[in-house]
Amino acid sequence: MNYSHAFIPTLREVPADAVIVSHRLMFRAGLIRKLANGLFAYLPLGLRSFRKVEKIVREEMDAVGALEMKPTVIVPGELWKESGRWDLFGESLLRLKNRLENDFVVSPTAEEAFTAIVRDELSSYRQLPLTLYQINTKFRDEIRPRYGVMRSREFVMKDAYSYHTDEASLDETYQAIGHAYRRIFKRCGLTVIPVKADSGAMGGSGSEEFMVESEIGDNTLILCRSCDYAANAEKASCAADYALSESMEAAADTPPYEKIDTPDLRTIDELCASFKIQPNKFMKTLIYRAVNIELDLSSAPGCAALKRSKPSKDAPLVYPEAFFAAVIRGDLDVNEVKLAAVLKASEAVLACDADVVRLTNAPVGFAGPIGLTDLPVIIDKSVSAMNDAITGALEKDTHFNHVAYGRDFTSWMIEDIRTVKSGDRCPLCGGELYTKTGNELGHIFKLGGKYTSSMNVTYLDENGKNQKPIMGCYGIGIDRALASVIEEHHDDAGIIWPASVAPFHIIIIPIKYSGEVKRRADQLANELTKAGFDVLLDDRDERPGVKFNDADLTGIPWRVIIGEKGIANKKAEIKHRREKENRMIDLNKAVVEIVQNIHDELNQLKK
Amino acid sequence: MNYSHAFIPTLREVPADAVIVSHRLMFRAGLIRKLANGLFAYLPLGLRSFRKVEKIVREEMDAVGALEMKPTVIVPGELWKESGRWDLFGESLLRLKNRLENDFVVSPTAEEAFTAIVRDELSSYRQLPLTLYQINTKFRDEIRPRYGVMRSREFVMKDAYSYHTDEASLDETYQAIGHAYRRIFKRCGLTVIPVKADSGAMGGSGSEEFMVESEIGDNTLILCRSCDYAANAEKASCAADYALSESMEAAADTPPYEKIDTPDLRTIDELCASFKIQPNKFMKTLIYRAVNIELDLSSAPGCAALKRSKPSKDAPLVYPEAFFAAVIRGDLDVNEVKLAAVLKASEAVLACDADVVRLTNAPVGFAGPIGLTDLPVIIDKSVSAMNDAITGALEKDTHFNHVAYGRDFTSWMIEDIRTVKSGDRCPLCGGELYTKTGNELGHIFKLGGKYTSSMNVTYLDENGKNQKPIMGCYGIGIDRALASVIEEHHDDAGIIWPASVAPFHIIIIPIKYSGEVKRRADQLANELTKAGFDVLLDDRDERPGVKFNDADLTGIPWRVIIGEKGIANKKAEIKHRREKENRMIDLNKAVVEIVQNIHDELNQLKK
Repeated sequence: MNYSHAFIPTLREVPADAVIVSHRLMFRAGLIRKLANGLFAYLPLGLRSFRKVEKIVREEMDAVGALEMKPTVIVPGELWKESGRWDLFGESLLRLKNRLENDFVVSPTAEEAFTAIVRDELSSYRQLPLTLYQINTKFRDEIRPRYGVMRSREFVMKDAYSYHTDEASLDETYQAIGHAYRRIFKRCGLTVIPVKADSGAMGGSGSEEFMVESEIGDNTLILCRSCDYAANAEKASCAADYALSESMEAAADTPPYEKIDTPDLRTIDELCASFKIQPNKFMKTLIYRAVNIELDLSSAPGCAALKRSKPSKDAPLVYPEAFFAAVIRGDLDVNEVKLAAVLKASEAVLACDADVVRLTNAPVGFAGPIGLTDLPVIIDKSVSAMNDAITGALEKDTHFNHVAYGRDFTSWMIEDIRTVKSGDRCPLCGGELYTKTGNELGHIFKLGGKYTSSMNVTYLDENGKNQKPIMGCYGIGIDRALASVIEEHHDDAGIIWPASVAPFHIIIIPIKYSGEVKRRADQLANELTKAGFDVLLDDRDERPGVKFNDADLTGIPWRVIIGEKGIANKKAEIKHRREKENRMIDLNKAVVEIVQNIHDELNQLKK
Repeated sequence: MNYSHAFIPTLREVPADAVIVSHRLMFRAGLIRKLANGLFAYLPLGLRSFRKVEKIVREEMDAVGALEMKPTVIVPGELWKESGRWDLFGESLLRLKNRLENDFVVSPTAEEAFTAIVRDELSSYRQLPLTLYQINTKFRDEIRPRYGVMRSREFVMKDAYSYHTDEASLDETYQAIGHAYRRIFKRCGLTVIPVKADSGAMGGSGSEEFMVESEIGDNTLILCRSCDYAANAEKASCAADYALSESMEAAADTPPYEKIDTPDLRTIDELCASFKIQPNKFMKTLIYRAVNIELDLSSAPGCAALKRSKPSKDAPLVYPEAFFAAVIRGDLDVNEVKLAAVLKASEAVLACDADVVRLTNAPVGFAGPIGLTDLPVIIDKSVSAMNDAITGALEKDTHFNHVAYGRDFTSWMIEDIRTVKSGDRCPLCGGELYTKTGNELGHIFKLGGKYTSSMNVTYLDENGKNQKPIMGCYGIGIDRALASVIEEHHDDAGIIWPASVAPFHIIIIPIKYSGEVKRRADQLANELTKAGFDVLLDDRDERPGVKFNDADLTGIPWRVIIGEKGIANKKAEIKHRREKENRMIDLNKAVVEIVQNIHDELNQLKK
């Protein structure tokens, strides 16, 4: 294609709201333009790369037996009411009415549409497993869309849904798609960090996120320097930094616990300073308020009077609110997401001061596990190994000393609720953990019976009995993947495309597009096009510097410069976008080298 | 692909609302399913054909230098307010608000989005011409969606927009895309009727529709049996069925006109019966009320007092209402669309009786052109050749006889305003015209400055002066094209796909999928797949009759049946979907024949 007909409006300046490098470069290189806040148009050059990412995703999904279909973008609200998400999804779901006052949503995801279709067609176990997907427009009514196509309102997602008779079948598809995702990202040139939701510590996994490192990432990742352990900080665990057996023995030697005066010493820092000891000698007791708790509390201390209810018709029974004491070693922090997960609650947050005073019968700062009989006490595993600790005594200006878990108090639950930090030890290999911020590019998830139950999907099993299938769902954001390629592959001058998703593989720059130079440039473009490559020929009447800058900015991997002098000797200058200097080379050798190199790169990315 | 993994839920029955053959077959063959009224999901088999149509459209658009891009589906309402269509488009435009109360539309077409992008990037005449297109989701909030994907609410359209410095450049692109459209439809196996808006009678054309014949078509087409003349009945013209020069001479021999008594004879039929002559001896005079008239009426009879106004800010000046007399030969009818076009009015309808009486000073039924001085008189060309006619005398129960146009009355305008009918003569070759009903698959249109004016798009010309570009727009409905392929290619048993858009080229049916039959069937499927064809292998444990019926219904062009007996002799049975009987043939020859035949068909469609 000739540059003068390619509509590539490159820019020097970028809008002030383009704060990340992919947003800036996509604007400057003429890949996208903004139609409104969070709504971006792909210009021809951007769409070429977009379609290449899409094609890679399609090929790898097809390769694992997933079938592409295409429901509508605008989906009947009825289906979302059936699943319960019409009410639950929140305001980012764009709900609308048509002229006949029918309810619709602009799909942000499509569990409902796929499940409604499968429901009508599914009769026998012989039709399962079944994996269906689409690559289609989605919409989320983000309050603050930003970072260009990285978090826009309208975007394109590959979303897949699988249906199964049993867990083994679901696991097989889940694993296959997990492998497909690794291949997809590899082929796009993306370095992803697969993050298992349950951190791999318990064997088997119900969810895996594919992250890329990003300065503006939504997620904090916990990674191991010695093995491939990777977890979302919200769910990460770490190796115990204590020996439980030793501590149990040591407890026998601990003197009986005793009350000590601690006037106005409420925080661990104040206590440490006063007693001149380390925070890990303290047990910290925090009162949490949790909401929508699914866990059965009927035998939990102080909870006998709590009643369960349903927030909506098809939702499970939950306790709307309950309070808990969480006890953790003084140098550690409680991870509220892990705590909420333990309680099967939608949220767990620190109780307000008034509630703390009411529930502990003591001022804030003096809570402790001994004597806390009217509240379910959850202790972190770190506490279970403490045999001589200081803890609040449920009384103003007073603590207990020489407290041993097991001897002096027990608990309702022992769980891992600590926040894992940089420097903690890997739960798999004991190596040192460190943190990164990441952005989610893909997610695979075992949904189980959530949608097939609420939408009443059944099939007949081998014995002619009605059964509910279970589901998995699997998403990849195409726009975000494309932007992430640029985040990973660029320099100060512009994008550096991997060959697999480059809008063009080769740019031919004639110093002056006329005469013999023009003839040879056209001929070279034809040859390379016939060899199956996408070739851009810069036929513009611009200074070479302008052409070189645009070639750098748009990031086309291979550049061939043809000038009068070189042509006379059948030579051209070539340069890969990553190389600093041009190399003068025989024109024919240049073609061979470029063709070989692109093939090698594409094969390498496929491995 | 193996049939058992292909999710092709074929059906015997269809919903009652599936009244046309493509809708019925798309349902029965498992190509689509309904999500809601007017919202259809493409299942995997349907999507395969859909993508092939899409690919043909893309290839041919790219071949004429159009550049694909991708604006959003949800578009800011602001742009539609700029163009004026937010108010004018009518209720089929799905308008919506997001959570921040911003206005949006779900695009039914995208002149605004493309023009907004071009406006920001266009600076110089050197960037023009520029043709951009998308293949993307559209939505029209139809009150009564029907005929399956033929008239659905959500659909996919290829819409292109071109920008030019002058008419010659617009015409060049317009012609090129017209040719591309012919190739697209040909490659899809569609017989289209290109219908020029101005019927080719005046040379040059501002609009061309690509129609397919359809029993449920929205459009009546006028076609010639002898040449390729084709016109929408709303705009069709025909050859004069009179000789103007002869009639002018004959008028000299006509006696002076005279008043005759015609008591209670108001209609042409009554007059014909009473005078025992043919309707073509009468001049029929009809009073029309037109609205929003752009034509200058300042010198039209009786119109001096009329005032012009603007219906909206950016609209042109128009007369809100005016009345006209239309005179036509008694055996013909006035075409109100052609009359409105002549007046540049948004509509022209027969005036009510009270207005007729007021304007003609006579009871209804006695209007005539002689003495009608306070009304603009528009005569159809047929009247200009009448030299001895009967016409109303503007007086109760009275007509004039021996009336000659030119001698006894003149007119404000002579225009072609007649309704062309089956049996009329072709304006190009004089052949016999006939009618068909048709559906529009594509439309190319010279928009001129409509959007570039209202949205204020400019560029600098060679002299550095600001100019407005002019535009063309070009649409093809992908869903409708696909459904039309089925309308044109089917029989009682199912679809008969052209090879170019068949979901699979070949179906291999092993009588029983096991042992040597299985081995040979798998081998054949592999060979044909490697040769570049899409192969479906019916591996199901079903009776052969079921497999044959599904193969017919889904319309896969080539069928290869492999059974134990044949295999022993290295033979298979083959059949093209159009053929009635299987043919026993050497397995190797079968492959050669099928491969050759598909290549031939694909090449034929490309010619």
